[in-house]
Amino acid sequence: MKRKILPTETYLDRIRTLQAAMQRQDLDAVLVVSSEAEPANVRYFTDYWPVFETAGLLVPAEGDALLLTGPESERLVRVHSRLYELRKLLEFRESSDPEYPDIQQTTFDDVLKEIGRRRTIRRIGLIGTNIMTVQVYQGLEAAARGLELVRCDPLLRSMRMKKSKDEQEMLRTAAQYAQSGFEYALSRVRPGMTEIEAAAECMYGVLKAGAETPGFMIWCVSGPHTDQAIGKSTYRVIQKNEMVQFTMGAMAEGYVSSFGRPFSFGHPGDGAMTMWKTGLEANLLTHRLVRAGANAGEVARSVHGFIREKGLGDHIVYGPAHGIGMMECEFPFIETTSDYQLEAGMTFAVDTFLAGPGYGMRYEDTVIVTDEGEEQLAPGFREILVL
Amino acid sequence: MKRKILPTETYLDRIRTLQAAMQRQDLDAVLVVSSEAEPANVRYFTDYWPVFETAGLLVPAEGDALLLTGPESERLVRVHSRLYELRKLLEFRESSDPEYPDIQQTTFDDVLKEIGRRRTIRRIGLIGTNIMTVQVYQGLEAAARGLELVRCDPLLRSMRMKKSKDEQEMLRTAAQYAQSGFEYALSRVRPGMTEIEAAAECMYGVLKAGAETPGFMIWCVSGPHTDQAIGKSTYRVIQKNEMVQFTMGAMAEGYVSSFGRPFSFGHPGDGAMTMWKTGLEANLLTHRLVRAGANAGEVARSVHGFIREKGLGDHIVYGPAHGIGMMECEFPFIETTSDYQLEAGMTFAVDTFLAGPGYGMRYEDTVIVTDEGEEQLAPGFREILVL
Repeated sequence: MKRKILPTETYLDRIRTLQAAMQRQDLDAVLVVSSEAEPANVRYFTDYWPVFETAGLLVPAEGDALLLTGPESERLVRVHSRLYELRKLLEFRESSDPEYPDIQQTTFDDVLKEIGRRRTIRRIGLIGTNIMTVQVYQGLEAAARGLELVRCDPLLRSMRMKKSKDEQEMLRTAAQYAQSGFEYALSRVRPGMTEIEAAAECMYGVLKAGAETPGFMIWCVSGPHTDQAIGKSTYRVIQKNEMVQFTMGAMAEGYVSSFGRPFSFGHPGDGAMTMWKTGLEANLLTHRLVRAGANAGEVARSVHGFIREKGLGDHIVYGPAHGIGMMECEFPFIETTSDYQLEAGMTFAVDTFLAGPGYGMRYEDTVIVTDEGEEQLAPGFREILVL
Repeated sequence: MKRKILPTETYLDRIRTLQAAMQRQDLDAVLVVSSEAEPANVRYFTDYWPVFETAGLLVPAEGDALLLTGPESERLVRVHSRLYELRKLLEFRESSDPEYPDIQQTTFDDVLKEIGRRRTIRRIGLIGTNIMTVQVYQGLEAAARGLELVRCDPLLRSMRMKKSKDEQEMLRTAAQYAQSGFEYALSRVRPGMTEIEAAAECMYGVLKAGAETPGFMIWCVSGPHTDQAIGKSTYRVIQKNEMVQFTMGAMAEGYVSSFGRPFSFGHPGDGAMTMWKTGLEANLLTHRLVRAGANAGEVARSVHGFIREKGLGDHIVYGPAHGIGMMECEFPFIETTSDYQLEAGMTFAVDTFLAGPGYGMRYEDTVIVTDEGEEQLAPGFREILVL
């Protein structure tokens, strides 16, 4: 099977779109940042994803963007980035602060001067402020004496909110990888294995299916650990007659799916089974409500209303859905306080999570909003899976 | 095999040691931060490691420390942390900025007031400034109007530089996991597999060996990709007669090993073989030079001198060793500009990396400095491994 990748022109187009938006907002430059755990922002424009170091992209309102990394990533950039105008700044080095006696550095002063040759820089927008490190911010701030620094994350959010046909295709592939990985793991996992061993089967499964990475740290949790909203596998041994939960994803060209399924070896007990069945119904209800034109807040209130009617209102943690794309969780959200209309091309993780005390369950599905309803990218195993 | 874990008393002792140092430096509180990709700082004091969200630890000079997370990690904290005084602040939420209409938040104002009841807060130290996010920093800054914020990373560095017997034991275990994982992967990898598939074998191998996680993103690179200082696996298909490189690690209770080995299927060509053999000699030379009392800079200059004598000086990127412990790369470094004496109990990754153009090789070994020399934690497969 030939692997589909986004053409380099797509990345260049995105930079041009950003530059046009910058002109409208009177921004002379924008600094976009990414980290190893949060690669989306810079990858969206360059396909580059930092490892160990962090990365930035300095986009002038006119002219070529500069990719910023620490001193060690030059060859990684040559292999992975669609943009090669690389400058190495100490502010993006790995957090252990190596000295690099033999590597020549550029500074924020240098890069601001460089982009300032074409156009005077007065206002610089910041994207990724919630992951930007203090050392990057303060480095820029010191070099930008007298210039205005403006947070402008919504600029990129609005660009990324609706997915193109190509992006939807990447998400379809990513969802298939995750479902294949789940199927593989399910054929291997048995009571007596630790959660970590079970998660290893998931990870192996998605990578052998074709994923570039799992996209986030896949977790398997079992028994009392299934009440975790964010989970991490432990050395706990999976038992019979308790809830088990796989929350997994897969990445394809930077696009990540999320695939969550509960299952059990034998009956998990009446309380857990009631929650499980109600959760599955709530998940199916959410899928029926998601469609272009629906009000996000109304979708959320309907789903939570249904769960409360069933007497499980106290077990709602959030939801029932969040945006997904280059991050497993990204803007926009479907929450009870949301007030906007779903649009065709938006992509969501329908994330049905009920928890506590002592057990929990989650179904998580990646979907594309359409005019008719939604396209479900990996609908397999959405059942009461008692093995 | 019974898994060894650090007793809770160890974590409490570390907080007390930090508090004693704070008193000496006239600090009334310290904020320590960690992220998913850089968990070490907060884990050192609590055993807690954030996923998706970030985490902080607010340590007053007197009294109990407060663990700070975003809104979703409460149950994860209950399972993983040795400290349960949890406060949920929006500044530590995941970077997609969910709204959390139904979860009650605490603020930086609240936690500063809370620790201020016992002792007036005037100076707050910051640890982890190079990974601290702008939103955490600015949130604290706004709440700490009129208070002094002081970077004090060296405080924690000096505590972590020499490893206790227990910590050394964790590193031994972590190194064994990595070597077992390598052995497993080597038995599975063949020409015709992609780098990603090969890395999946490594990951699976270390997890089945017993690791809690790989500790960092394991990479397999091949052919021209072996010249990467920091690498990432791709869909490139591994060929015969070229260099292949596994750079892998394994984590045991927060302690991470690093294990790097080059190998090839068939002869990789004369240029690559010369670099490979010289690199192996340089690696062995480094191992002979590391011992308590040796000057770090002299070790580095001797190793680089040897490589230059062999005519490969242009292929040195850094090194020849960096600290290792709760991070794959941490203070102190053995660089040509270093000037301090190695001490028994320091732990290093001897990282022999020569690169470019077109190929590269790395041997990476986790070692403990002793009075007699060094203890090599996983010395297997340190040979010219042509399969």
